[in-house]
Amino acid sequence: MSLQEALHWRSATKSYNGNVIEKDKIEQVLNAIRLAPSSSGLQPFKVFVITNKDLREKLQPISCQQQQIVQASHILVFAAWDEYTQERVDSFFEFSNKERNLPSEATDDYRLNLLGMLSKKTKADHFLNSSQQTYIALGFGLLAAADLKIDATPIEGFDNAAVDELLNLPEQGLKSSVMLALGYKDEDSDWWGKLKKVRRSNEELFVELH
Amino acid sequence: MSLQEALHWRSATKSYNGNVIEKDKIEQVLNAIRLAPSSSGLQPFKVFVITNKDLREKLQPISCQQQQIVQASHILVFAAWDEYTQERVDSFFEFSNKERNLPSEATDDYRLNLLGMLSKKTKADHFLNSSQQTYIALGFGLLAAADLKIDATPIEGFDNAAVDELLNLPEQGLKSSVMLALGYKDEDSDWWGKLKKVRRSNEELFVELH
Repeated sequence: MSLQEALHWRSATKSYNGNVIEKDKIEQVLNAIRLAPSSSGLQPFKVFVITNKDLREKLQPISCQQQQIVQASHILVFAAWDEYTQERVDSFFEFSNKERNLPSEATDDYRLNLLGMLSKKTKADHFLNSSQQTYIALGFGLLAAADLKIDATPIEGFDNAAVDELLNLPEQGLKSSVMLALGYKDEDSDWWGKLKKVRRSNEELFVELH
Repeated sequence: MSLQEALHWRSATKSYNGNVIEKDKIEQVLNAIRLAPSSSGLQPFKVFVITNKDLREKLQPISCQQQQIVQASHILVFAAWDEYTQERVDSFFEFSNKERNLPSEATDDYRLNLLGMLSKKTKADHFLNSSQQTYIALGFGLLAAADLKIDATPIEGFDNAAVDELLNLPEQGLKSSVMLALGYKDEDSDWWGKLKKVRRSNEELFVELH
């Protein structure tokens, strides 16, 4: 399917049939998430890939009872860094320089400038930015899924604090930002996918300054 | 180009050659941004599509002097709602129901529940959410560009308050969230694209709970 076709094909699936996504296909979706860009390349998040039934049954009541949580094949929970600590930033540049066979000081100017900017921001600013990075990855995952005709649902509207506790996120320095359900829709009961896709007009969404 | 090829092909372009993107191609990128999903479908943002030279010269010094701002073909500035007001939410559902030939009360339960949840949140919470939606659209724009072999650079690290003032965003109830430069790279000087793409391993990024 072309990318433009995938854009029209996808919709936020409301009802899944329980079929499990093939291993090579879920790997391609995760690969798109892994290859998504992020601020300074830090990838300031982890993604919890949940198929476990018990865990999903605990997740559902703290996610507004959304049925996709238990019906879909996979639930991804994106959890962003609660803070850009110096240790995390330093550790990334050490890893990145090793991968590129660069001396560890190769990125010192950039790294120190970045740390200086981060030190002027609040912890809330840090999470605003780290959570935004998870949404780029979410976008990449959504399009990669559509490209493979895998149905998907971006999920917000859950009890963040309760989800954080369920997945022990605070002790990992993480906070939940968004979820992604992946699977195959139940054609009969997925009423949403049958409605016209509504988007604002170009004239309303874009302000052209030429 | 397949989506998986596009994922590997793209990189954050540091230097552009000034060539202008063909009209039908930029329209496809904007279409991907327009078709990106958003929370409750609200599309709580506008996108400023800037080619104007004078404006870009004013934008560059308040964007850490990043050269892509003046070198690229198009600069997109994503500007998110500063607040989910009742007027904005009501206006969206009115539009959406008209598009779907539904009576205006068809979505009342959903809309009132949404307004109730939003009323418990702060203005900062609202912007956190609206800005996150612009990052899904950013992700869709990035992949659509790569699919067409258009080079791109997601740009943060600018002076948000100064950009807001330059584009008169406060009086439109908007705040800048992120920029996207689009164009064609200068192959000789784009050193970044020649470096190995570094990403965390699957084992580090994903936590499998089966």
